[in-house]
Amino acid sequence: MDFQTWMAAVQARTELALERVLPPTSTAPARLHAAMRYSVLAGGKRVRPLLCHAVGEIFAADAKQLDAAACAVELIHAYSLVHDDLPCMDDDVLRRGKPTCHVEYDEATALLVGDALQTLAFQVLAEHGGTAPMIALLAQAAGSRGMAGGQAIDLGAVGKSLTVEELEFMHIHKTGALIRAAVLLGAHACRADDKSLIELGHFAARGGLLFQVVDDILDAEASTATLGKTAGKDAAQNKPTYVSLLGMTEAKKKAADLRAEAKASLAYFGDRARRLIELTDFIVERKF
Amino acid sequence: MDFQTWMAAVQARTELALERVLPPTSTAPARLHAAMRYSVLAGGKRVRPLLCHAVGEIFAADAKQLDAAACAVELIHAYSLVHDDLPCMDDDVLRRGKPTCHVEYDEATALLVGDALQTLAFQVLAEHGGTAPMIALLAQAAGSRGMAGGQAIDLGAVGKSLTVEELEFMHIHKTGALIRAAVLLGAHACRADDKSLIELGHFAARGGLLFQVVDDILDAEASTATLGKTAGKDAAQNKPTYVSLLGMTEAKKKAADLRAEAKASLAYFGDRARRLIELTDFIVERKF
Repeated sequence: MDFQTWMAAVQARTELALERVLPPTSTAPARLHAAMRYSVLAGGKRVRPLLCHAVGEIFAADAKQLDAAACAVELIHAYSLVHDDLPCMDDDVLRRGKPTCHVEYDEATALLVGDALQTLAFQVLAEHGGTAPMIALLAQAAGSRGMAGGQAIDLGAVGKSLTVEELEFMHIHKTGALIRAAVLLGAHACRADDKSLIELGHFAARGGLLFQVVDDILDAEASTATLGKTAGKDAAQNKPTYVSLLGMTEAKKKAADLRAEAKASLAYFGDRARRLIELTDFIVERKF
Repeated sequence: MDFQTWMAAVQARTELALERVLPPTSTAPARLHAAMRYSVLAGGKRVRPLLCHAVGEIFAADAKQLDAAACAVELIHAYSLVHDDLPCMDDDVLRRGKPTCHVEYDEATALLVGDALQTLAFQVLAEHGGTAPMIALLAQAAGSRGMAGGQAIDLGAVGKSLTVEELEFMHIHKTGALIRAAVLLGAHACRADDKSLIELGHFAARGGLLFQVVDDILDAEASTATLGKTAGKDAAQNKPTYVSLLGMTEAKKKAADLRAEAKASLAYFGDRARRLIELTDFIVERKF
């Protein structure tokens, strides 16, 4: 199976798995459930589920073993996007090529959608084989010392000049923590040994930053139509990015370095890490 | 030990336990952590932790066994208050006698405070002996088919005329689900047997509604100074309540009936349920 076929299969099974865990619109409160489904289904690259499943390939795991972890991480990601788009945060109207949740519904509903998607993430993991340590790992990654903390640092950074170190600290929290959780939850779901967890931790740390550097480059270079979200908004909002701090040439060099380091940390797994290597390449070469 | 002394002791140990699990303001992002602590510490009756610990008394449990469950439920409650007070929801400026989180800090910070407090609830439970079934129970109670769903139903009900059945459906979700979770998590933390869980489930169902009926009565009767939050706001916002639907006399009769039913469902435990009975009386007789 080539990478594109594998990726399409994982995306399709993730879509089905998300569809199954999201409450049906026939269940009250119908409008909230419709808005939750609107915000999660039919959109997104599913990078975090892909990471879970690519880790599963290392351990030759049945894909079924990875579905709960993949859904849980994606639900946390989806909740963060809904809240991030709210008027009091980034105030964005376009996401994945569609009106954002608060535009399509209303602000109060979008607030509750984000809240309920976060809860659902923990529920899915707890109800489908996730252990207490896995749930703790996801919570650490999502909370104030992880993703939500990164958002707070981001808020405080608007209009300020950051050093590259400060920018990195922000991204390690804002994006990196959940990318790392996706990789490590995938490993835990496969009952990976300690040595594998350490190596995958190294990979995830580099991969998380890589993802953000590429995101900054895309935001500066791509068009709104290609991205499916408002392009150039970092510059418009005067947000520090790798591109604004380092310049485009250095940002691209940094991406190349991180890509090499991320791949190097997978050497331990040899050819078993093939999907994870291909996915890393895909993340760098994506146009959206 | 009389009830007041017991209650004060539980409130004090809950305060300490919350203080310990909340990140220190010395940890970045400092402002977010300060706002989280502001929103949780030094305020609130801690009804849900009291319920956890009162259930613990039935099983003669060490109070230490109950701390994680008590904190987790209180953190979910605290997050819901912070989000509920936001301008796009109830738009309230006063909570527990202090400016609400978004007034004291700002809206974006209050959004992240609520998000991070929810995450912390699951983290605390997962890191301190909570099992996957306990985490699932808390998530069910907090999510779109529980508390967050109740908030959505509440939003949709403003300005509408509800039947008593519809009002009850809303409150079973909005308040009842988390009250029930507090009772059942307390029981799970004590490894209660199935029969005890069933009896406590009956108690919690009545107790959850009772709490809300009393809340509606207090909102209609008490002053803002006594409540520590804006009084009379249900009527001002044209929200249906037990008082507006039934009238004050019938609402008080309903509270008396629910109180009797709640206590009757504790008969199975005999004198071991003393604290839970006293707590039920306290909930009905409170003035704030």
